[in-house]
Amino acid sequence: MRPLGLNALRARRLGLLTHDEAVAFIRSDSDVSKSEGLSSYGRLKLQCDGATVYASLYQVTSDLIDHDEIGLSEYAWTKLGLTGPQAVTVSSAPPLQSMTHVRAKMFGEELGTDAAAEIVRDIVAGRFSDIQLSSFVAACASPVLTAAETIAVTKAMVETGTRLVWPAGRIYDKHCIGGLPGNRTTPIVVAIVTCFGLTMPKTSSRAITSPAGTADTMETLTNVALDMAAMRRVVETTGGCFVWGDSVGFSPADTSVIRIERALNLDVDGLLVASVLSKKIAAGATHVVIDMPVGPTAKMRNPAAAARLSDLFRQVAAAFGLEVRTVITDGRQPVGRGIGPALEAMDILAVLDTWPDELSDLADKSCLLAGAVLEMAGLCAEGSGADLAGSALRDGRARRKFDEICAAQGGSGSPPQAQFTRPVRATRSGRVASLDNRMIARIAKLAGAPEDASAGVRLAVRLGDRVRQGDTLFTLVSGTPGKITYAMEYVSENPSVIEISR
Amino acid sequence: MRPLGLNALRARRLGLLTHDEAVAFIRSDSDVSKSEGLSSYGRLKLQCDGATVYASLYQVTSDLIDHDEIGLSEYAWTKLGLTGPQAVTVSSAPPLQSMTHVRAKMFGEELGTDAAAEIVRDIVAGRFSDIQLSSFVAACASPVLTAAETIAVTKAMVETGTRLVWPAGRIYDKHCIGGLPGNRTTPIVVAIVTCFGLTMPKTSSRAITSPAGTADTMETLTNVALDMAAMRRVVETTGGCFVWGDSVGFSPADTSVIRIERALNLDVDGLLVASVLSKKIAAGATHVVIDMPVGPTAKMRNPAAAARLSDLFRQVAAAFGLEVRTVITDGRQPVGRGIGPALEAMDILAVLDTWPDELSDLADKSCLLAGAVLEMAGLCAEGSGADLAGSALRDGRARRKFDEICAAQGGSGSPPQAQFTRPVRATRSGRVASLDNRMIARIAKLAGAPEDASAGVRLAVRLGDRVRQGDTLFTLVSGTPGKITYAMEYVSENPSVIEISR
Repeated sequence: MRPLGLNALRARRLGLLTHDEAVAFIRSDSDVSKSEGLSSYGRLKLQCDGATVYASLYQVTSDLIDHDEIGLSEYAWTKLGLTGPQAVTVSSAPPLQSMTHVRAKMFGEELGTDAAAEIVRDIVAGRFSDIQLSSFVAACASPVLTAAETIAVTKAMVETGTRLVWPAGRIYDKHCIGGLPGNRTTPIVVAIVTCFGLTMPKTSSRAITSPAGTADTMETLTNVALDMAAMRRVVETTGGCFVWGDSVGFSPADTSVIRIERALNLDVDGLLVASVLSKKIAAGATHVVIDMPVGPTAKMRNPAAAARLSDLFRQVAAAFGLEVRTVITDGRQPVGRGIGPALEAMDILAVLDTWPDELSDLADKSCLLAGAVLEMAGLCAEGSGADLAGSALRDGRARRKFDEICAAQGGSGSPPQAQFTRPVRATRSGRVASLDNRMIARIAKLAGAPEDASAGVRLAVRLGDRVRQGDTLFTLVSGTPGKITYAMEYVSENPSVIEISR
Repeated sequence: MRPLGLNALRARRLGLLTHDEAVAFIRSDSDVSKSEGLSSYGRLKLQCDGATVYASLYQVTSDLIDHDEIGLSEYAWTKLGLTGPQAVTVSSAPPLQSMTHVRAKMFGEELGTDAAAEIVRDIVAGRFSDIQLSSFVAACASPVLTAAETIAVTKAMVETGTRLVWPAGRIYDKHCIGGLPGNRTTPIVVAIVTCFGLTMPKTSSRAITSPAGTADTMETLTNVALDMAAMRRVVETTGGCFVWGDSVGFSPADTSVIRIERALNLDVDGLLVASVLSKKIAAGATHVVIDMPVGPTAKMRNPAAAARLSDLFRQVAAAFGLEVRTVITDGRQPVGRGIGPALEAMDILAVLDTWPDELSDLADKSCLLAGAVLEMAGLCAEGSGADLAGSALRDGRARRKFDEICAAQGGSGSPPQAQFTRPVRATRSGRVASLDNRMIARIAKLAGAPEDASAGVRLAVRLGDRVRQGDTLFTLVSGTPGKITYAMEYVSENPSVIEISR
């Protein structure tokens, strides 16, 4: 009955995507289930050859799983380092001690440095179930994290991840708090500020819920998957880089926390600040410019909320000797014309080449942010940074720098062009009264972005533009005709994506 | 490619136990996944023949699920009313509007009657994911639910369930807030108070995490699965009943909330009060006695916490015209000697028959609680209820009443006897300094309770008893020798289950 030994089951890979929650499936009538008194949603401790994983249990009553098997999600499989049907030892997980701190925080106690460290360590070790993680996020929302508590969480997030050390000197970085489609200023900012001899070793993410991340966009132009040594070489030669940073392992607790915040549609300022700053500190930055778009369908809905968040950013950054400057920007509509990896890359190249009128918003915003960096660096007077940045853009220095960095990263390609397009036209004449950032992002994803790098949306209008009935508002772009159909269905069901007033 | 129609998948029953969260499995490379832009942990709206279910999605990359299939947990399968591989229409679930109220509550707004009603309705409809439910529970803990907010939640819980109406007159009930193994006073209390012509239509639960619920215990003596009509007949004839009430459908939101509280190891007073009182109100009670055991390993750890909870019980009950009396009892150790369905049933019969010395705690406590009911009914002076209750126990009236109710419920059996026993002996001489309620409950479950009704633990000692090395502390009882082995392993790993001081 027990060829595998007491409380051991044979591992089976289920190919189940569960992000960073390990999930296990066991027969409810298995000996282990009965002897351990397990029940669904219980927490298990799984062990194999020295590796340990904490997993949430689903019990199975069908023959989906054999009596001597344990079905494992991809995360559990990988964390246990399994390669085949090895024996996994199963026991009930002991109570999670750091939940004591989560409960204390809910009941009004201050979250101290040690408590935050214990919680974050347990999150990184995968000891928190999603239900427990959700209570942690809620506890950070109420009572709302103070600056001191945010500092404690930031410190814990830095300490659980890898950390880059650069040779002495200032290291610049930029970050956007997100939510705005097409807001691909980063590559332009890096190209500009490095023209002035500043160092900006920029790591960026791929899209999680958006139609493109900076890494997705830059991947259509060069190689972004550099290891640490290659990244250092590029930065030493050129002053900058455009590297996919997710795999570097800065602030690993962050991913889990963000996923839960998204599921709750809950933005906790303290967690946002801890998330951003922990990654910047880990990346070795000393000076950071933060782009904070404000608009009705952006992350920050109003200026007062943005001011509170700015203040928290400054207080927490100061505790780590980090200088932060937040720039409130217009978040009422997407930036640039293209939304989707290749379409955004084309916008970037166009701005670097000719600064066309129709992309003045992307060019101006890039100069504003690059200018803030130049001002922090003391290279010009306050208020004149954007002009100085603009000069490097206009005279082609930024374009040459951009090419230099791409070449150093091992290649430069040109963005793929999609075969299929379909215009979406105005059903009446009037003035463009609003563009919904979230709906536009959704449409670009339905068209296939970011998996299909060529897919997305190309906007033909901006806020305030006059249009006549039949004019193109935007064009759907995709490598697959079926995707265009899906995206069109969504467009017809959601006419408020672009509103036209008389 | 789409024989099932747009966004439709063929249902497949996975036999997956997920309590009251619906869970669905879809191939990540299926057309529906791609067209709807789904990702793991997203929320789905599933529809089939007019039935709708909201489910949490896991994406699958293996051939566990076919491209045109949707794997469903038992809860999802049942809620959709499926019988075979029918077509299920899949779409992304719209954002959950009532989460707005959860977030507002976190941010300090009072939870009003309408908001509570919307939240509880959505919980009952299965629209909350576990992650969202967890945030609701956390929001109720911080800022802690006020009496007014608890009233709002109680009202919402009553309104979403079924409700019993009795002919005019007082309806008595009792409830224990739980956590004490062997605390099986209910059947004795019902037998006593109905002797005095009072009405106590008692519904009880089966064990969820404990080794026995009152329904499990009474099932070893009579039929407890009565429908509403049968229950009414029994109560009309005898004044009382011992019925399994879970399937009656009082306060259905309660089950989900309790499950999450358990996963968080978080007791929220307001949710406990709403849970208990909503079920009492739904059952038609007008007068309720609440047993509140206090002890280091009981649910209430200290008298101050118990006093606060009592106060909240009274305030909320008053809002519904319900009279509540809380009785603080000794929760330092289990009550009676048997722990497990049949063992507890034997204790009950022994108390009803002969009031043996070794069961004086169970007998005294039953009289105390029954006495509180008799005092509320005005049948005796305050402080003399226990004596009056004791008289009915001593002269055999309670036993006859008990038999009468059992017979009216359609049968009386005798509790099953387990074949296998193993004594656990004192490893030193001294005085019994503590008994750990939680560990003792765990041991009884490892021995097989409650599935094996005969299994459990029989205590041989109580707090303060003098023992000599080698004396039996308790006996493991089971129908399966293997279970005794499991339980013994746990006992040897946890010597603090019963501590002996010199």
